[in-house]
Amino acid sequence: MPRQALPRLEFWYEFASTYSYLSAMRIETLARDCQLEIVWRPFLLGPIFKKLGWPTSPFNLYPSKGSYMRRDLERLCEAYGLPFTLPVPFPQQSLLAARIAHAGRNQPWIGAFTRAVFVAEFGQGLDISDEGLMADLLLETGAPAKDMLDAAQTRETKIGLRAAVCDAENRGIFGAPSFVVETGDLFWGDDRLEAALEAAAKEAS
Amino acid sequence: MPRQALPRLEFWYEFASTYSYLSAMRIETLARDCQLEIVWRPFLLGPIFKKLGWPTSPFNLYPSKGSYMRRDLERLCEAYGLPFTLPVPFPQQSLLAARIAHAGRNQPWIGAFTRAVFVAEFGQGLDISDEGLMADLLLETGAPAKDMLDAAQTRETKIGLRAAVCDAENRGIFGAPSFVVETGDLFWGDDRLEAALEAAAKEAS
Repeated sequence: MPRQALPRLEFWYEFASTYSYLSAMRIETLARDCQLEIVWRPFLLGPIFKKLGWPTSPFNLYPSKGSYMRRDLERLCEAYGLPFTLPVPFPQQSLLAARIAHAGRNQPWIGAFTRAVFVAEFGQGLDISDEGLMADLLLETGAPAKDMLDAAQTRETKIGLRAAVCDAENRGIFGAPSFVVETGDLFWGDDRLEAALEAAAKEAS
Repeated sequence: MPRQALPRLEFWYEFASTYSYLSAMRIETLARDCQLEIVWRPFLLGPIFKKLGWPTSPFNLYPSKGSYMRRDLERLCEAYGLPFTLPVPFPQQSLLAARIAHAGRNQPWIGAFTRAVFVAEFGQGLDISDEGLMADLLLETGAPAKDMLDAAQTRETKIGLRAAVCDAENRGIFGAPSFVVETGDLFWGDDRLEAALEAAAKEAS
């Protein structure tokens, strides 16, 4: 008898995003409790921000928003029991990590790899554009490091990640993390993760 | 024996702000449960947005953010059991309401008046720049309508409200609603109301 497909929730995340870190660390456990399948959708916010007229993160463009974000993250990480270090520079260059995650988005290790990147970046303050670090994290999470670093540089991956950015825009996404349920209803921000999970589970029942 | 002073939480709100509506409708009941005193701090976001380079609400400047805000508000209002109608135009001219609330900020009817304005605006879609509407809402909430409309136009009120905007900036405020606990710790957004109340209560204990 075929196993019934679980309802799906798309998780759109940007490796340079602090609030994506919070959701990435929490989503797989929460989704298991709700019997949902997570669709991992790594993407890049840079091209979307540029269209909004922002050459960099709004947390850098608007210092009061940036200071607040740091304090908010400190409090939230404390509440979630997560380490927090803002890497220098912020935001990090997330292109390499995003390409690897895009290439591996349907692999069983994608959750573990995603969390490993975020912990290296926002727990330890490491530089996620470093290929050596990426290789280490891939190995740690049981992924074929060399193959994935190669896969990250293929034309298919580069075009696929660009298409993911278009998909994000078509869903109305303007920030990260974002969550999209099967009806297309959009939820933005780590503080909407629980509501998105609830909506995805309700829709399916 | 003098009654012990309750710990205080500053509630910074802008009448034109949809998310301020959500907090205004909830804060007094929640504060009573936590034995906190609310310090009502009506202010204007316009001058702060102008300094950030935004001639109007970011929800108008960035259409994807605006569409999302409408959907998010619909869902939140449904969850809270509140009516929701976005007034036209959005954002509303909130200067008159803010001046009245500033002049009456320490009066016993300030919570009821604040809620009445928000319900007229976001529950019924009414024009809150209308002096007749303000008079009706003041009367409804047991406030001296004529005196308050006069007080709204005094030099003291106008200067006081401008000073409130400076106070907001000095606290690092860049959006509404915002909450400030006695140590100066800032919380932004209706989704941080519970955390702000908890921090204010904890600090006092």
